Amino acid sequence: MTLGRPHHDPSPLYVSNLHPELGETVTLRLRVPAGYSLSRVFLRFLCDGEGTSLEASLVSTASTGETWWSIEVPMVNDTLQYRWYVFGPRHPRGAWVNGTGLHARDVPDRADFRITTSRPPAWVDDAVVYQIFPDRFARSAAADGRDLPDWALPSAWDEPVRTYRQRQHDQIYGGDLEGIAEHLDHIASLGATVLYLTPFFPARSNHRYDARTFDHVDPILGGDAGLATLLEAAHARGIRVLGDFTPNHTGATHEWFATAQADPESPERAFYTWTDDPPGYACWLGFASLPKLDHRSAELTERLTGPDGVIRRWLRAGLDGWRIDVANMTGRLGPLDLNHAVARRIRDAVDAEGVRWVVAESFWDLARDFDSFTYHGAMNYAAFSRPVWAWLERPGSDEEDAHFQVAALLPPLDGPGLVDTLTDFAAQVPWSVTLSSFNIVGSHDCGRIRWRVGGDRGRVLAALGLAYTMPGVPMLYYGDEIGVTGETGEYGRRPFPWHAPGTWDLELLEAVRRLGTLRHAFAALRHGGLRWVGAVPDAVAFVREAPEGSVLVLVARDASDPITVDAAFLPGVEAGRAVEGDGISVAGGAVTLASSASGISLWVW
Amino acid sequence: MTLGRPHHDPSPLYVSNLHPELGETVTLRLRVPAGYSLSRVFLRFLCDGEGTSLEASLVSTASTGETWWSIEVPMVNDTLQYRWYVFGPRHPRGAWVNGTGLHARDVPDRADFRITTSRPPAWVDDAVVYQIFPDRFARSAAADGRDLPDWALPSAWDEPVRTYRQRQHDQIYGGDLEGIAEHLDHIASLGATVLYLTPFFPARSNHRYDARTFDHVDPILGGDAGLATLLEAAHARGIRVLGDFTPNHTGATHEWFATAQADPESPERAFYTWTDDPPGYACWLGFASLPKLDHRSAELTERLTGPDGVIRRWLRAGLDGWRIDVANMTGRLGPLDLNHAVARRIRDAVDAEGVRWVVAESFWDLARDFDSFTYHGAMNYAAFSRPVWAWLERPGSDEEDAHFQVAALLPPLDGPGLVDTLTDFAAQVPWSVTLSSFNIVGSHDCGRIRWRVGGDRGRVLAALGLAYTMPGVPMLYYGDEIGVTGETGEYGRRPFPWHAPGTWDLELLEAVRRLGTLRHAFAALRHGGLRWVGAVPDAVAFVREAPEGSVLVLVARDASDPITVDAAFLPGVEAGRAVEGDGISVAGGAVTLASSASGISLWVW
Repeated sequence: MTLGRPHHDPSPLYVSNLHPELGETVTLRLRVPAGYSLSRVFLRFLCDGEGTSLEASLVSTASTGETWWSIEVPMVNDTLQYRWYVFGPRHPRGAWVNGTGLHARDVPDRADFRITTSRPPAWVDDAVVYQIFPDRFARSAAADGRDLPDWALPSAWDEPVRTYRQRQHDQIYGGDLEGIAEHLDHIASLGATVLYLTPFFPARSNHRYDARTFDHVDPILGGDAGLATLLEAAHARGIRVLGDFTPNHTGATHEWFATAQADPESPERAFYTWTDDPPGYACWLGFASLPKLDHRSAELTERLTGPDGVIRRWLRAGLDGWRIDVANMTGRLGPLDLNHAVARRIRDAVDAEGVRWVVAESFWDLARDFDSFTYHGAMNYAAFSRPVWAWLERPGSDEEDAHFQVAALLPPLDGPGLVDTLTDFAAQVPWSVTLSSFNIVGSHDCGRIRWRVGGDRGRVLAALGLAYTMPGVPMLYYGDEIGVTGETGEYGRRPFPWHAPGTWDLELLEAVRRLGTLRHAFAALRHGGLRWVGAVPDAVAFVREAPEGSVLVLVARDASDPITVDAAFLPGVEAGRAVEGDGISVAGGAVTLASSASGISLWVW
Repeated sequence: MTLGRPHHDPSPLYVSNLHPELGETVTLRLRVPAGYSLSRVFLRFLCDGEGTSLEASLVSTASTGETWWSIEVPMVNDTLQYRWYVFGPRHPRGAWVNGTGLHARDVPDRADFRITTSRPPAWVDDAVVYQIFPDRFARSAAADGRDLPDWALPSAWDEPVRTYRQRQHDQIYGGDLEGIAEHLDHIASLGATVLYLTPFFPARSNHRYDARTFDHVDPILGGDAGLATLLEAAHARGIRVLGDFTPNHTGATHEWFATAQADPESPERAFYTWTDDPPGYACWLGFASLPKLDHRSAELTERLTGPDGVIRRWLRAGLDGWRIDVANMTGRLGPLDLNHAVARRIRDAVDAEGVRWVVAESFWDLARDFDSFTYHGAMNYAAFSRPVWAWLERPGSDEEDAHFQVAALLPPLDGPGLVDTLTDFAAQVPWSVTLSSFNIVGSHDCGRIRWRVGGDRGRVLAALGLAYTMPGVPMLYYGDEIGVTGETGEYGRRPFPWHAPGTWDLELLEAVRRLGTLRHAFAALRHGGLRWVGAVPDAVAFVREAPEGSVLVLVARDASDPITVDAAFLPGVEAGRAVEGDGISVAGGAVTLASSASGISLWVW
């Protein structure tokens, strides 16, 4: 809880430029709440690897009683890693302020603030992402005339998803890219500004993470022309499109792998790692269908990230960026670890094509691999989804995701535990990484949020409410907005029920549309700072603050005990108004936050 | 406090091999104390970057009521990063166990345990280091005949250290390497097994961190012959010797720098970074006398770490390893960061000459730069010295070290704060890094411990007691054993008072010798695990445990309130005996730890 204590985060109220140039001077500010006195304030930062300190100045005392301290620091290195050291009546011998709050003892550097010279596309700040699994979102009339490959098991749109033993991954519903283009109205109505498509390259499965080639779009999806149609239609509406690329592996049916197997003298031979044990090559988690790529090959590097490589070619074809599959394993095999080198090459290739966005999958702690110079951001499971699930899910729902096994399980959280966990994980990475990452409540890789919370609409809204109001880019998985359910990633990949509008949860849909509207209406939700206001077991509250205004957020998983705070800690709150829910009230100099049920309340000023 | 909770650390009781080969199977064990029941135990680890889990087995229930769980894990990557996930009546939905203890919520990976395929010299485990500043330790008769350079200000052995304005760094007392060789009896009497010498290359100062050449030993110190004499004498007594090397910079009088300045076409030109601003080149912290090396130069790399480079040549001449100066800044300048690449090259060069040790200076959190594959270990200020000082120092003494400014200050700690801080920092790096690092209570770069604790002999012993009984290699700075004082690094570089034995604190000397004896007598102090037993403001207690036996340690900064624990948590403690101090007693199934004054008590079984 930082309310009532000195606060800083790298948002515009506190940092003059989150993406400075090397050599630029950056102004950093520390906010000290009413009633909290500091006598001296220092900034400690690393300069060429050495700890250095400078003294800050008291720059203003607001009529609210708040005081602000300020300091100018040169951007000597590409990363400015810093924390504050504050002295005052409560800390006569000093205390540190870093990304996890105020500490009366020394703490490791891992939660220091970090700003970097890396600059993600400006449009990422305003993005709302809608994820589509192309086989399952919508089927255009053109799909009827297409031949399916031999392995495909065609399914009618209203048939259930097959079980694993029923060759789940061969089941083709025939959704296509033109089908998506036909439903942009729906997508736009949600406030989505970016489509993220799981892979569209031809493959030997419906998920297409086992590509046969990276040279053209799967004909079942409408081929290259289908993608062009979708890109044109999406761009015409101001919607950007991200592809999905797998630098970790190809399919075993990939043309490179075929060449590599057929011709030991071919350059493709070096794209893979050959072993004596079956199946004779390294592959993803032991699946022979997914041979792992060996990034030591310069030729492979050229084909992936060179000027005419896969990454850049498809960006020039109109994609606005990439989602990178299995980023945490890419380039890692036994003693070999080229992960960061590959990530930087991909990032450089993306940057070379203009202001594009690259977001990488990582189910785990982002600290190791995300420094803002590899991928811009992540599918943020560790620092967002998993804590949120651990707070909201009903007993039993956390036992799915069999392939993650116990490694993915989490002890359940109450509200204070949620705040601590979110804070702890977010502090591990630069603020820019969090802002460029997807806030995910569900994806093609995990059970549907509706199922996870035991069907409770209010908890779905609590989850999505956090995704839309916390720092980071909200990502909505197609169908979650109407209450599609499903107990694993696979069973959740259900056809969007255009054919059965009676099954839609229209009240949920309406609320999700409002979340999109709110996100776009209030800049503070997009790039504001974050101060935690309070937490009780069944609710958490925080405020997002930007020069343009402030938004106070209450998210509840059930009827919640009240959180009451002094309005003096939220200057201007009395002049605000509720824009969602009725859980927040202001009277007599106090702000009271209490919900009568699961859901979200917002108060803006 | 891990006593009474499930415990693991990477010591021999819990890990079958701390330095396994790639592909080797490692057995990991979790210890569960009496009265603590677990139903299932899992290990979560990263495999090629992906989180993976395996279930552990209950392998034994001891008569003491303790239970042990065990699991075998293959060493797939060079680093095995892991934590435990435990279920039981107290954690029906699970809890994590990592390097900072048991957590009922998910925590970032930073404190996961790590074992690696890196293997430091076996002799490091048993080392006790004695640091010598060669100009100030001892002067042989041969020194009288040596010419001093023009800049030198000769001083008699009993003169005080000059002030900075009095050209402190030009003051030469004339200590030499033969002088050290003449006093090996004293060094051996302390149990020291390794000498660490600050630089012996010719320079333009008494500290010699501004080398003129790396090709020979300073004639003032006795030259190459003097070093040979010392090495032979030391090795004959089983004492190893570490040199001190500065890959970050040379002196401005260095022969390479002279060539670089004189001849822009010379290869040496690329060894440095030339700037338009004065003094015309990059240098250490702005000191023109210390031009910074540019490790982009392949020729420089060859001269430093090639087969005939500085690092390897002097190891072949008999050095047993190196201490690396300013390691945290080396290779870092503006947007350039070659730090880890340089560190690995130095490490590889050291390894190429056999089982040698390389320890690097870093005043800051080791997590960023120490993964066991760069330097073996560090001069461990962040995870040892600074917390210990913050607990033991008297008000005012923390305001020295002007060149570190506020960046180096720390809020004072009480006992529980000390334990939390030590635990938090140690958990950031592999156990092997901690074991290969110097536990420092004072060095040439900081005020003398005697001064820092306000002259209190008991507190000096508390500091040294921690250095000798905590994981890590104790380092004793010459003269600390007899109570030499001094309020900064510079003023502490006093001539060892061989001439004034009446000034020696003989009681302290005796106690320090006992610490050396105890360290060598009990294997648990050298490579045992660490469980914290308890802490009160004025005392902390922990137990070091190994297959060979256990040592219970109480360290007090003042008369302390008692710490009482159930003897069942320390199986076998009743059969033990006091070997130092009288603060520990065992009776009626309880262990009571309380000190009547500052100092250290040990109980072994």
